[in-house]
Amino acid sequence: MEHNLEDSIAVLRRTPAALNALLRDLPESWTASNEGENTWSAFDVVGHLIHGERTDWMPRVEQILNFGESRAFEPFDRFAQAKQSQGKTLPQLLDEFARLRSENLENLRALNLRPEDFGKKGKHPALGVVTLSELLATWAAHDLTHLHQISRVMGYQYRDAVGPWKAYLGVMHCTGHGA
Amino acid sequence: MEHNLEDSIAVLRRTPAALNALLRDLPESWTASNEGENTWSAFDVVGHLIHGERTDWMPRVEQILNFGESRAFEPFDRFAQAKQSQGKTLPQLLDEFARLRSENLENLRALNLRPEDFGKKGKHPALGVVTLSELLATWAAHDLTHLHQISRVMGYQYRDAVGPWKAYLGVMHCTGHGA
Repeated sequence: MEHNLEDSIAVLRRTPAALNALLRDLPESWTASNEGENTWSAFDVVGHLIHGERTDWMPRVEQILNFGESRAFEPFDRFAQAKQSQGKTLPQLLDEFARLRSENLENLRALNLRPEDFGKKGKHPALGVVTLSELLATWAAHDLTHLHQISRVMGYQYRDAVGPWKAYLGVMHCTGHGA
Repeated sequence: MEHNLEDSIAVLRRTPAALNALLRDLPESWTASNEGENTWSAFDVVGHLIHGERTDWMPRVEQILNFGESRAFEPFDRFAQAKQSQGKTLPQLLDEFARLRSENLENLRALNLRPEDFGKKGKHPALGVVTLSELLATWAAHDLTHLHQISRVMGYQYRDAVGPWKAYLGVMHCTGHGA
């Protein structure tokens, strides 16, 4: 499946509602628990998604369009949410994520990207040359990676409760792959 | 985290809405694609969840309460959905799953389970002795395993589109664990 703007937007605009349906008002035993030291809870992941909306995806789109490969992207701070989510509730974070995502997708539409834009290049600080098309596909796939992570982190909380069925539950055998 | 009926119901009642928000009216390039021969698409997974609502979870709850360990559960047919989903659309399956889940949770509530019920035992045809508590925890964790799977199957469709970012996306490195 090649990257296609409408396919990416179709995922990007659904993620806030999907996370809202899954997580809002869920007991904290599910949403505040992680997989052990230096791992993330569902609450942490939503904070990370918010930080991406603010500092990563659309700023990088604009940088590719305005500066091409002449300037590397700012590195993305994967730990910024620890400070930024402090004192907030999960429903507040879900609302903030939905609002920012909606604004970003409006801004993306307003760019009126043409087919020839998708091959434009930018410079990732670690990965090197990347295209606008790869950036947009990654924005959507990044949502999926964190939905995958949230379901895994939640599943982990029941790793003992399921008894011998653990053997059959794939989510209990996912080792996280650093994400 | 020990099994707790309210925690399990909290997940079980959210799954249909979460899948609905994620999948309804999403392009078929996402929902009808799988990970290769003998693997499932998101469409197949929703059919599998429906079959579980009809034949697996509540019938096994009732069997534990009525017969204990004296009779092994019917084996669960993991491939029944291929036939049963035929000719249906994904929105129809999402509606059917939501209706069946809602009915099953009403029936579960109507059992008025008491603390002493959760230790009651049943016989799994392959795993041997299991408890009612483990069955209920597994019902919830099974939702999470399939949410984990759906996000992985969707992510797989963009494995090339994301270019070098693939290295950073955990969902692209999950090998499925047989689920």
